[in-house]
Amino acid sequence: MTDFAATKAMFDLPEGVIYLDGNSLGPLPRAAGNRVGEMMAKEWGQMLITGWNKAGWMALPTGLGDRIGRLIGAEPGTVVTGDTLSIKVYQAVASALELCPNRKVVLSDSGNFPSDLYMVDGLLRSLGPEYELRVVAPEDVASHITEDVAVLMLTEVDYRSGRLHDMKALTELAHANGTVTVWDLAHSAGAIPVDLSGCNADFAVGCTYKYLNGGPGAPAFIYVAPRLADRARPALSGWLGHEAPFAFDLDYRPGSGIERMRVGTPPILQMTALSAAMDIWDRAEMADVRAISIELTELFIARVEASCPELELASPRDPNQRGSQVSFRFAEGYAAMQALIARGVIGDFRAPDIMRFGFTPLYIDEQDVEGAVDILADIMGNRLWDAPEYKVRQRVT
Amino acid sequence: MTDFAATKAMFDLPEGVIYLDGNSLGPLPRAAGNRVGEMMAKEWGQMLITGWNKAGWMALPTGLGDRIGRLIGAEPGTVVTGDTLSIKVYQAVASALELCPNRKVVLSDSGNFPSDLYMVDGLLRSLGPEYELRVVAPEDVASHITEDVAVLMLTEVDYRSGRLHDMKALTELAHANGTVTVWDLAHSAGAIPVDLSGCNADFAVGCTYKYLNGGPGAPAFIYVAPRLADRARPALSGWLGHEAPFAFDLDYRPGSGIERMRVGTPPILQMTALSAAMDIWDRAEMADVRAISIELTELFIARVEASCPELELASPRDPNQRGSQVSFRFAEGYAAMQALIARGVIGDFRAPDIMRFGFTPLYIDEQDVEGAVDILADIMGNRLWDAPEYKVRQRVT
Repeated sequence: MTDFAATKAMFDLPEGVIYLDGNSLGPLPRAAGNRVGEMMAKEWGQMLITGWNKAGWMALPTGLGDRIGRLIGAEPGTVVTGDTLSIKVYQAVASALELCPNRKVVLSDSGNFPSDLYMVDGLLRSLGPEYELRVVAPEDVASHITEDVAVLMLTEVDYRSGRLHDMKALTELAHANGTVTVWDLAHSAGAIPVDLSGCNADFAVGCTYKYLNGGPGAPAFIYVAPRLADRARPALSGWLGHEAPFAFDLDYRPGSGIERMRVGTPPILQMTALSAAMDIWDRAEMADVRAISIELTELFIARVEASCPELELASPRDPNQRGSQVSFRFAEGYAAMQALIARGVIGDFRAPDIMRFGFTPLYIDEQDVEGAVDILADIMGNRLWDAPEYKVRQRVT
Repeated sequence: MTDFAATKAMFDLPEGVIYLDGNSLGPLPRAAGNRVGEMMAKEWGQMLITGWNKAGWMALPTGLGDRIGRLIGAEPGTVVTGDTLSIKVYQAVASALELCPNRKVVLSDSGNFPSDLYMVDGLLRSLGPEYELRVVAPEDVASHITEDVAVLMLTEVDYRSGRLHDMKALTELAHANGTVTVWDLAHSAGAIPVDLSGCNADFAVGCTYKYLNGGPGAPAFIYVAPRLADRARPALSGWLGHEAPFAFDLDYRPGSGIERMRVGTPPILQMTALSAAMDIWDRAEMADVRAISIELTELFIARVEASCPELELASPRDPNQRGSQVSFRFAEGYAAMQALIARGVIGDFRAPDIMRFGFTPLYIDEQDVEGAVDILADIMGNRLWDAPEYKVRQRVT
């Protein structure tokens, strides 16, 4: 059994704050500051360029990839970190499309994170007017997987409602129609058990700054199924994905397996911080995380519904149908979230009316959930959100 | 006049090392460790998600862009940082190609950094067989700028020899032929004065971990001329380049100006380190940097040629024809470079026979140059490179 008291003690959480926004940006692992400080002073500072070899920087993208791989059911050697999630979405979809050269449709849903849709829209515009991004309602995805669909690109957990797609069933259906799948695990990795290998997934991508706690702007990751890894052409074909990067050949020859999905020089400071976060994850089992996550979300829903009748559940009621977050609808949700944040309960707001709360057993426990609901009930019951200072929208939330 | 003794004191350089490889990875600014440590503890740790607003993280990509812009002759509001250089090459070339929809040729040269060629090769393969990457010898570029060339993509300073292209003349010639230019400033930014605006350049890209000293994996930058910024479609169209990222619309609408070239979530740890490096650059004038750089490279060449007859100059002899690096050819260059590194003089080796030395007035002075040549002369004169331990090639150099 994962020792969640021990993992909680490994995070530096501010006094007086209950942090229910680890699904946007995970908190600081206590060890991260020293780790990055030492990397900067002893590796960058003292080893300088030789750090790429001596300090093992060059191996970080695949080393971190393997550690993330354990959490998402990926075989060793199938995951590499780097770039941002948007870039990895582009790379995965561009690579997947070429595996179905006679099809021109990418199917996705309106519950996908907008950046995924933007990136694919940008890609398809580059490829030509014969390509189509087909966006349907989440519940209509299955019925739209047809033999003209080249790529099915879905985010497993809806970023607003937490609704879960059935990765195994949709992947099977896709394969039965000759469609290649790209799964975005942004709200899955570290949130719920994922079994990429067992689901026979083709491509998957995700970020590490949410549940994985890698820090603001931490690198993304990409998974390619071993059966495809040596066939997939990395559309973003940079030198570190080359078979022999330091031969400086003029012609591109893809590296073997997942290595070819590397692009440019990896961000070593970010990867060092992520490595400190993965030390905590190395102590956790996803089955335990999921069990506690369900306990926490069930408790939260029950307590909120009992004390805040103004709020309408926007997440699936069945815990098996949702990720590790819970959302409520409230017309004045923006103001209510600002009022909550002012009282030290940090969740976030997603337009037009979603108050979103993430539950992360590594550092959130029952007492936190109860404390958060007490404050929320006070704000709702006494209309404390109805103050001018909570209604001024900032550019970024 | 820039106070180079003061700038040198702002770097943490290891004892006993003469670092002539700042053109691969710049050294650690003394202030960077504390800056990143404070950002992690006070911003990530205490502000958590609210750091995007409160700590100004969201504004870092353009803020850093403007500071870099001053060094490369770019108008304020025309440069944004993010991603890696390979990604920014792809974005710039893909955007540039669409400005010439009836042309299918990208012209580059064999002196370009291979990753630039790889990325464009990958892009053009995605676009279709009618597209062509035409790679000619550096001296043949001008004669190949013809009316079928959509995009001229060149690295201004050759990464091996340091040879300089004439940005102004080639851009004029390109424009006379209706060709859009993409300049890679990897070995220019912080090395030589660049005047993007005065040269009427269209797109430019560069990295910040070399002369700009942003640290391993520091973000790249991209410049788009103001006259093109609102016309260029960012092929890599991520959410942070959207007109209203936090509206979470399903449709992409590009932001105004350079903002649209943003893609995913920016790497805040790396950008914080870069920001400490730019504090040093804020004290420097590129004209001073260039004057001292020429003094240092001229001194180095004269002293090496006087004391190491085995080495053949591989860089242009005319300082106005080269960047801020000097290369020599030597058949046993790999072993000789290992022997140099073992004695504390760090340069680097580029296959097949190039020994490359970067000169960076911010922290390298005449005494360093003389000390380095003394050691090189000892190694060459006494064949100290001819030892088995220097001949074993590591994967990464």
